[in-house]
Formats: sequence, C-alpha cells, structure tokens
Amino acid sequence: MVLPNDPELWQVLNSEYIASEPWFTVRKEAVKLPNQHVIPSYYVFEFPDWVNVIAVTKEKQLVMIRQYRHGLRNVFYELCAGTCDETDASPLETARRELLEETGYGNGNWQEWMVISPNPATHNNLTYCFLATDVEFIQQPELEKGEDIIVHLLSVEDVKQLLLNNEIKQALMAAPLWKYLSGL
Amino acid sequence: MVLPNDPELWQVLNSEYIASEPWFTVRKEAVKLPNQHVIPSYYVFEFPDWVNVIAVTKEKQLVMIRQYRHGLRNVFYELCAGTCDETDASPLETARRELLEETGYGNGNWQEWMVISPNPATHNNLTYCFLATDVEFIQQPELEKGEDIIVHLLSVEDVKQLLLNNEIKQALMAAPLWKYLSGL
Repeated sequence: MVLPNDPELWQVLNSEYIASEPWFTVRKEAVKLPNQHVIPSYYVFEFPDWVNVIAVTKEKQLVMIRQYRHGLRNVFYELCAGTCDETDASPLETARRELLEETGYGNGNWQEWMVISPNPATHNNLTYCFLATDVEFIQQPELEKGEDIIVHLLSVEDVKQLLLNNEIKQALMAAPLWKYLSGL
Repeated sequence: MVLPNDPELWQVLNSEYIASEPWFTVRKEAVKLPNQHVIPSYYVFEFPDWVNVIAVTKEKQLVMIRQYRHGLRNVFYELCAGTCDETDASPLETARRELLEETGYGNGNWQEWMVISPNPATHNNLTYCFLATDVEFIQQPELEKGEDIIVHLLSVEDVKQLLLNNEIKQALMAAPLWKYLSGL
C-alpha cells in the first residue's frame, strides 16, 4: 500500500554487518532521512521468519505451552512457535513440524491466520501465524536440547482470562489470540 | 504466576555488555539450562519500556499514523508510540506526551489497556498500551528531527479491514487493536 502523502524512504549511506551469528546478526547503517537528517548508527536485527500456531483440539481445547524466557527471566504461557530454517520448508510446513515436535499434536485443518512483524523498525523478518483446528495427539514430543516445554490444554475461556490478565505476554502471540477471541 | 510443573529458570554463568548505545544495548551471556545443557552465547537486547495508544476521537475516529520503518524498508499504518525516557515520567505520562507531540491530540479519558512484551526471549522490556477515548485536537504536532509522521483519522471499520489484510504489521499494535475490536 502506498498513499499519496506517505513519508519517503530513508537513503542508506553505509551498511556493514557487525555480527553474524544465529540469533545475533546485526547490520549497522548510516541513513539519511528525507529531511536530510543523518542517523550515523542505525541497527537492524536480521532473523529468519518466525511461525506460531493457535492449535485447537477436536474437544475445543487450545494447545498452549509454558516455557522459560530469558529476556524477561520468567516462565510464560505461549503458543507453540518456531523459526523457519534454511531448508525449503514453507512457513506452514515449519509450523506443522514445530507443533508436532514441541507438543506431539498434528493433523487437523490449517489456515494462515495473520502475518505480523516483531518490530518493523528494528527487525527485517515477519511472523506467520496459523490457526489449526481439530488437531489430535499423535506422539510424544521430541524436544531439542535447548527446549524445556510443558504442554497445557486450556479452554477458550481460560485463554481469554489469561489474555485479560496480561499473562500471555508475547505480542506475536497475543495478537493472533485476540483475533481468535474476536470471532472476526 | 508459577505452576507446580513449570520449567526451571536458567542459570547465568557469565554476563557481559558487548554494546551500550541508545537502541543497541546488548548483553551476551553464557547460560546453563536445568538439563545441564550450556548455551555459551545468548544475547539479550536491553531497551527502556515502550508505550503506544489507541486514541479515539469524540467522533469515534481512531488517530493512526503512517511512518517509514527501516527494518522492513516500508511505510506502515501504526498507532502513536514512543519510548519511556530516563526521566521519572510514568508510561501513562509518556503516552500522553507522545500522542500530543506526534499527532497534536490530547485530553480525553485514558486507561491502561494491555501490557505485553516485544519478545520475552530476547528483550528485557515491556510495552504499555493505553486506550484514550474522547481525545481532541489541541495543537499542531511537534516532530523530532528523526520523525516523519503523517496523521490519518480512520473509522473502526477501516482499521478492522487493515487488520484483516495484515496492513497493521507491528505485533505490539495489532494485539491491542484486536482486543479493541473484540469488544471484550
């Protein structure tokens, strides 16, 4: 979408990678704004695209997880989520794989639910959110070494109360869940 | 909230700041998980808390802005938003100041609407979202040198269509707007 009176894009005067590790790839850029103002050090965090999924069982329970998150040093209710790796897997295939690995749930009917950005000012990636209905338990979860995940099946009313109490903190998960509750 | 079977916290083995600039303060930590797995380089991005506001005029129009965002190199519809600086201003005072400076709107009835995290895995900060009803135009916006903002007054139906079309990309803004649309 472009509107006639939209702000103009910034011009990149210089660009260099200052780090290039998994979960820490950072570009430092000097940029010039349309009003000629120069920002000498603007940092862009590069990540692969992310996925998450609202998974609802045939019994209308939501497959939620609890997981420790080191940025806030606490344990939170979350949706199952993951990262698109460098294979050719689509966001949908990645979300299906993550749900099965992290929770043991699969099958069901899947649809793309929302495409959002963790932060369009600082991040170059998108998050693809899916809604999977009528999922069923298939197998025990297969967690990676860095994963420590407890699965909880919650009613829609439980999730609504968690959202109203700010207990589901991650914005990339709160947004699709609020859309789900809205019924729109 | 703590549940009996919650995952345990990670132990920090080493912690150092590798950068300490505005918008780029980064802590690199070596951490040990409860299963004894060690992650030698875990990065936490430190930011002040952020605020944003759903501002609704007496005529039931939402005060939205369009702004260029360099991470995705595009212009987006957004809520008015800002950063809690190092003064003693509360999130509410910061949100009121940002709305007035960026859009010229003020007064009205304010309530805390949602408290969410940009990313509890990687960020140490929270975002305080407010709902301000019956705001009115008070004065011309006073933009900073780095700001290039166009104000748009949109109907609730317009905003609903933008959300359904993934045109409001920023998760920290989509979440409170979907809650607003939900009527819950």
